[in-house]
Amino acid sequence: MKLPTVFNKYRADIDAELKSVLAERQSPLYDMMRYHLGWLDEKGNAVPNPGGKALRPTLCLLACEAAGGNYRQALPAAAAVELVHNYSLIHDDIQDDDKERRHRPTVWSIWGKPQAINAGTAMRILANLSLERLQKSGAPESKRLRAHRLIDERCISLIEGQYLDISFETRFDITADDYLEMIGKKTAALLSCSLELGAMMGTDDEAVIKGLGRFGWDLGIAFQIRDDILGIWGDEGKTGKPAGGDIRRKKKTFPIMWAFDQAKGDLRTDLLEYYRSGDPTPNGTAQVLRVLEAIDARSRAQKMANYYTEQATAAVKKLPLTASSAGDLQELLHFLAERDF
Amino acid sequence: MKLPTVFNKYRADIDAELKSVLAERQSPLYDMMRYHLGWLDEKGNAVPNPGGKALRPTLCLLACEAAGGNYRQALPAAAAVELVHNYSLIHDDIQDDDKERRHRPTVWSIWGKPQAINAGTAMRILANLSLERLQKSGAPESKRLRAHRLIDERCISLIEGQYLDISFETRFDITADDYLEMIGKKTAALLSCSLELGAMMGTDDEAVIKGLGRFGWDLGIAFQIRDDILGIWGDEGKTGKPAGGDIRRKKKTFPIMWAFDQAKGDLRTDLLEYYRSGDPTPNGTAQVLRVLEAIDARSRAQKMANYYTEQATAAVKKLPLTASSAGDLQELLHFLAERDF
Repeated sequence: MKLPTVFNKYRADIDAELKSVLAERQSPLYDMMRYHLGWLDEKGNAVPNPGGKALRPTLCLLACEAAGGNYRQALPAAAAVELVHNYSLIHDDIQDDDKERRHRPTVWSIWGKPQAINAGTAMRILANLSLERLQKSGAPESKRLRAHRLIDERCISLIEGQYLDISFETRFDITADDYLEMIGKKTAALLSCSLELGAMMGTDDEAVIKGLGRFGWDLGIAFQIRDDILGIWGDEGKTGKPAGGDIRRKKKTFPIMWAFDQAKGDLRTDLLEYYRSGDPTPNGTAQVLRVLEAIDARSRAQKMANYYTEQATAAVKKLPLTASSAGDLQELLHFLAERDF
Repeated sequence: MKLPTVFNKYRADIDAELKSVLAERQSPLYDMMRYHLGWLDEKGNAVPNPGGKALRPTLCLLACEAAGGNYRQALPAAAAVELVHNYSLIHDDIQDDDKERRHRPTVWSIWGKPQAINAGTAMRILANLSLERLQKSGAPESKRLRAHRLIDERCISLIEGQYLDISFETRFDITADDYLEMIGKKTAALLSCSLELGAMMGTDDEAVIKGLGRFGWDLGIAFQIRDDILGIWGDEGKTGKPAGGDIRRKKKTFPIMWAFDQAKGDLRTDLLEYYRSGDPTPNGTAQVLRVLEAIDARSRAQKMANYYTEQATAAVKKLPLTASSAGDLQELLHFLAERDF
């Protein structure tokens, strides 16, 4: 499975915009951010390879074009959502005690947790300062204020989702509704925001703005459930994350939540034994995988992802979108719900 | 020494505004904030006594009145600066590993560091959402955008200052300029912002806005140096902080920075021995206090605080301010630079 070509379309512009937001910022704090974003190594030397897929800014710019706008006008918003996402990764790694991300040491594992907290929060504020650049894009003041409110509300939602995710670690009664609330807040809110912001910069048509936001929400749920599948059954060589990692980290992802809901008798006993015990063992991971297989958790999760993919498609079906961008959005949606990396 | 009566003038309005910003926010995250703000105990029961002095919102509202405005129009800005200040305290306590603040367990020591990071960052975002309420105050869109930019820039500055403060812990070559840069960013930037925001809501006169901002900056430096004095020689019964606490925590405050600059021979050896060693000992604290006495660090620090008090006064001398509020600002300035709590 290949990365859709639309990921390449805006990549250079996104990187240039992000670099402009950080330009002239001199404190070592910003080098920690540049390291996290994949621009510098830990000694501060430039590295050639960019970091992640830049999914959120790509969705933002694509939504702007789909709504009939010039994507360049949405670049400050695209940079803002990428900074919000990356701030959340810096803090997540601290909270989860994760020492590696994308085959590199995490920010806190190099600079320590106190300074990594600073780098994360400062990156979050930089996202707002990136929105200041919308003035140059010609966005009216009312839209700029609306962009601030939207990104702040969705970021609050993201933190509420992260609160739930952490609190689920010690709970064994998570329902499907609890899980959907958590990933709605933690993942879908910001993906939806990315599309809504882009659409806002491309049109004044509220139906288009709300419809693309709804598309982003459902896409976000599908994306997260697929991420949960890869977090258990993914190929480390492709995902960059260790196979079974979410089981070892005892994350209550969709398949695990489903197992707690469905497993009876011995299966349930095995599951509880693992999740209530202390440090995970390789045997324990295999035991959980057997439970998941017995209740068909993987295909159940994929069916759920597919359901949200259909919902997303329905959300934009009747909207007057630019045809080529609407096609790109569909390609991206299906990639995200079915990808193996 | 008594708290100036101006602290009582706006207190009820400030608390009501803050409570409105948090109203209808239901996640347990917000109860962690309500606990930190002194409204709830750790079980979620209401407690009668409010928290700190609410210095920053008081300065904000006073600046609005001094600039000729109705202070009620600045209430959303006042709430915003109080939330920025309190977010920074929640994160500071995590970073410094401090288990108590104002005679109560810190947020992280009750809910753990991962969730305390969430509560702090979410409170920071709530500050921006508080600014949304300026719309109801009738502030034009351009001023609301300017308020966003100002609070975000000053908060970035605050985090840069916190970065420096932490990085100073392992350095022994801090100069007076380094120290002033650090407290300028960490303390003065937000105090200055508090007055500037209030003034902006009270007038369009840029000289008044900038002048009150400058007043806040110098007041902030004086305030911090006095805080440093109390952190070493303060009376625990009055300050709520243990005497000599900053020595035990090995903070590079003004008197310590001064000692590193001035102490020669045996005095310098004693100082380095303490700051380079592992866990602090009561003997070590006494040793540092002797060095500080020998180089007259306390009166040198107070002279520096007094110098900035004079600078602050000069910054507003020729401005057309409302006389009674200008008098209140002077009273507050002198209280902050000379207080014993």
